[in-house]
Amino acid sequence: MNHPASLAALRQPLPEELLLALQNMLEDRCSTSLAMREHHGSDESSYDPMLPDAVVFAQTTEEVAAIMQLCNHYEVPVIPYGAGSSLEGHVLALRGGVTLDLSQMNNMVAVHAEDLTATVQAGVTRKQLNLEIKDTGLFFPIDPGADASLGGMAATRASGTNAVRYGTMRENVLALTVVTADGRIIKTGSRAKKSSAGYDLTRIFVGSEGTLGIITEVTVKLYPLPEAISAAVCTFPSTAAAVNTVIQTIQMGVPIARVEFLDENGVRAINAYDKMQLPEKSLLLFEFHGSEHSVQEQAEVVQDIAAGNGAGDFEWATRPEDRSRLWAARHNAYFALLQMRPGARSISTDCCVPISRLAECISETQLDCERNNIIYSIIGHVGDGNFHVLMMIDPHDPEDIAKAEGVNARMVARAIAMDGTCTGEHGVGLHKMDFLIQEHGENAIDMMRTLKHAFDPKNIMNPGKIVSWEKN
Amino acid sequence: MNHPASLAALRQPLPEELLLALQNMLEDRCSTSLAMREHHGSDESSYDPMLPDAVVFAQTTEEVAAIMQLCNHYEVPVIPYGAGSSLEGHVLALRGGVTLDLSQMNNMVAVHAEDLTATVQAGVTRKQLNLEIKDTGLFFPIDPGADASLGGMAATRASGTNAVRYGTMRENVLALTVVTADGRIIKTGSRAKKSSAGYDLTRIFVGSEGTLGIITEVTVKLYPLPEAISAAVCTFPSTAAAVNTVIQTIQMGVPIARVEFLDENGVRAINAYDKMQLPEKSLLLFEFHGSEHSVQEQAEVVQDIAAGNGAGDFEWATRPEDRSRLWAARHNAYFALLQMRPGARSISTDCCVPISRLAECISETQLDCERNNIIYSIIGHVGDGNFHVLMMIDPHDPEDIAKAEGVNARMVARAIAMDGTCTGEHGVGLHKMDFLIQEHGENAIDMMRTLKHAFDPKNIMNPGKIVSWEKN
Repeated sequence: MNHPASLAALRQPLPEELLLALQNMLEDRCSTSLAMREHHGSDESSYDPMLPDAVVFAQTTEEVAAIMQLCNHYEVPVIPYGAGSSLEGHVLALRGGVTLDLSQMNNMVAVHAEDLTATVQAGVTRKQLNLEIKDTGLFFPIDPGADASLGGMAATRASGTNAVRYGTMRENVLALTVVTADGRIIKTGSRAKKSSAGYDLTRIFVGSEGTLGIITEVTVKLYPLPEAISAAVCTFPSTAAAVNTVIQTIQMGVPIARVEFLDENGVRAINAYDKMQLPEKSLLLFEFHGSEHSVQEQAEVVQDIAAGNGAGDFEWATRPEDRSRLWAARHNAYFALLQMRPGARSISTDCCVPISRLAECISETQLDCERNNIIYSIIGHVGDGNFHVLMMIDPHDPEDIAKAEGVNARMVARAIAMDGTCTGEHGVGLHKMDFLIQEHGENAIDMMRTLKHAFDPKNIMNPGKIVSWEKN
Repeated sequence: MNHPASLAALRQPLPEELLLALQNMLEDRCSTSLAMREHHGSDESSYDPMLPDAVVFAQTTEEVAAIMQLCNHYEVPVIPYGAGSSLEGHVLALRGGVTLDLSQMNNMVAVHAEDLTATVQAGVTRKQLNLEIKDTGLFFPIDPGADASLGGMAATRASGTNAVRYGTMRENVLALTVVTADGRIIKTGSRAKKSSAGYDLTRIFVGSEGTLGIITEVTVKLYPLPEAISAAVCTFPSTAAAVNTVIQTIQMGVPIARVEFLDENGVRAINAYDKMQLPEKSLLLFEFHGSEHSVQEQAEVVQDIAAGNGAGDFEWATRPEDRSRLWAARHNAYFALLQMRPGARSISTDCCVPISRLAECISETQLDCERNNIIYSIIGHVGDGNFHVLMMIDPHDPEDIAKAEGVNARMVARAIAMDGTCTGEHGVGLHKMDFLIQEHGENAIDMMRTLKHAFDPKNIMNPGKIVSWEKN
């Protein structure tokens, strides 16, 4: 799929002196090989790759600062890169430049179990973090599916399956270390649970997608492992019945830990890919956290609500290995769906609406996909009013792309009209820049542009993402 | 108490044309009377009043925009004013100008009970909001004690007694309507529970204390009223025993709704002021929310922890009127303490530390107050690691002030050394500007200054608060 090419015209060759300086500093951690550049010039979106001129690997905040000072001096774009799992074209090197890979910054900085906090370098992934703290009785709940890096998760304001109970990266990042566009190191926030001490720099960088600075360390909240966890699958006669069950559960204030919707298409794909035998109907996957009694109490309330919506029986997965299998299958949905159409790529989009409008928003989007004969699935973190549409398209067929983009545009317009948002958790990247204006209006976008100009006056931080440099 | 007077030298008389234009637009809602200016030129801090040149009352966002356009044209400072309950000198008119009172913007804009959201004009107070939604089965939990306006609460990133369970304004504001320094109207956020759609403008304005723009509407999360609520008072042999009970409760992950610490001085003052018969020892006030069974379960866990720390028995207040009386007494602590020293004003300060350091931070601060012979009390939202020191001082006695400010400075230094923050919920205002640098470092403060310059290029939005305009 093509990308907005306007910035490619601004592409400048990498200054020889800069490359030499980077090679001098980083030795074999500075590469210009085609393979390395290709790997870093694409993400999980369906965009064609767009390569940086060089890829560098930093190991410390001080190295990141030194790299930024050099690139600032030469006014060369820098694209921070975590696990490469973003979905909206976030890491494409639209104007070339240097991709700064943070995956080698994968050290734990500090675990303060007694305070329920951990500080990690940006390249630590969520699975690594949970492994490192497994003896503390604590866990880090945010789970976007991919084994993303904490830096990347902060930069895209990630969330995922557990957010309905534990919140998103917006609520769970306490502090950051950030390198600014001109190579200064700043610390935002502290390990205090709350603070009124000045402007919320932390939340300016959370969700900024590498366009304002580079996140090099992240301090997050941890949570005590629940005394009891149980998970269940439940089938519904229709999408509406499933989604209405979720709406009522949220309105009742049940502190459910996870509630995921899968449509029939998604279930079918997962069954084939993961050799599961889930009933091929609209499904909800539930997970309950709490004391033994509270888990039981929550489950009873939700079972009542589900029964009132014509649901089948709950099938329980109480053994940890069964739960893991279930959630692994859920997380593989993206790869499972790609198998439904050989050679396809996925246009994956998401939106989020106020909970009462969710059934309507999903149903209309399903109808739209079907009218357009798209191979698709709708799955989602429905407890938050957030869902995903995955559309399997031929990336070389403009008509196919246009159909899917039509569905996407109408879904976003629908979500915004319902007072929702054009993306609940994927971020803006390249793919949702136009929708951002639609959602926030020109004045708010001007404000965002003002922020970008102030924090990145040379427009070198992941340029061309979130907001255009100039007013269109 | 004197304030940093440097800005007073920059004070300019209000341009005649501006005053005429405001009078023309607002008629009797524009006042230059001394009484009105005096009322608006002070807050609950111990600073001497510093009066604006005029006070205007807006009733709509459009009026606020028109006022800002005028003041921007004449480059005259504007100080937004809610309920006047701030504590750190937030509303003092350091350079004169216009105080913009939003208390007449007290209409409900929309209640979406089915989505658990409400949108209100900025002047609606938290008590009014809860009254307006009392038939929905929902409530708005954030409770800073004073009946503050929602706009003011957003602007100071307020929290209070319920924050340990429900979060602060940072977590509970979904969207804002804001008027910018040059009089444009922007909408930040949506009613979606989460979003990755661009820079987090909402959280830039939450906590900005009127220095970046004027909040005119606030959309907040609401919560289902708990099925069961119970409250209890429990005495402890020492501060450490009480605080350690809280630390262990939080570390266990008990979803306690409120846990407030009162020292003996605070209890004594409340008993006198509110005619209560609380035992005059270190106290914790607890409140539990949940299902009948979950409340009981939480209470049992906490009672066990408390007993392990040598606590007395829990005295339960299960009737709503007893609970209300208890919390009213807690909220009156400030006024109760003022009675302990006739003619005194209070230097009220707060800080917040990682939970494991709380006992140490409180004990050392108590010792410091006692060494300095200050009439004081420490009370606080200890579940968040947040506590307040109220010191009764003679506002005309420089030595008295110096002693209290010494305690304050050492408490802040202590909190920062523990990786905490110089203010958990009071905000920066005038009083904590120097500490902000100590907490965040020069580079981060530069970043805040960059933001201020970008959003308020003429320095007319509540000038002289949070960060100084020029680098010192």
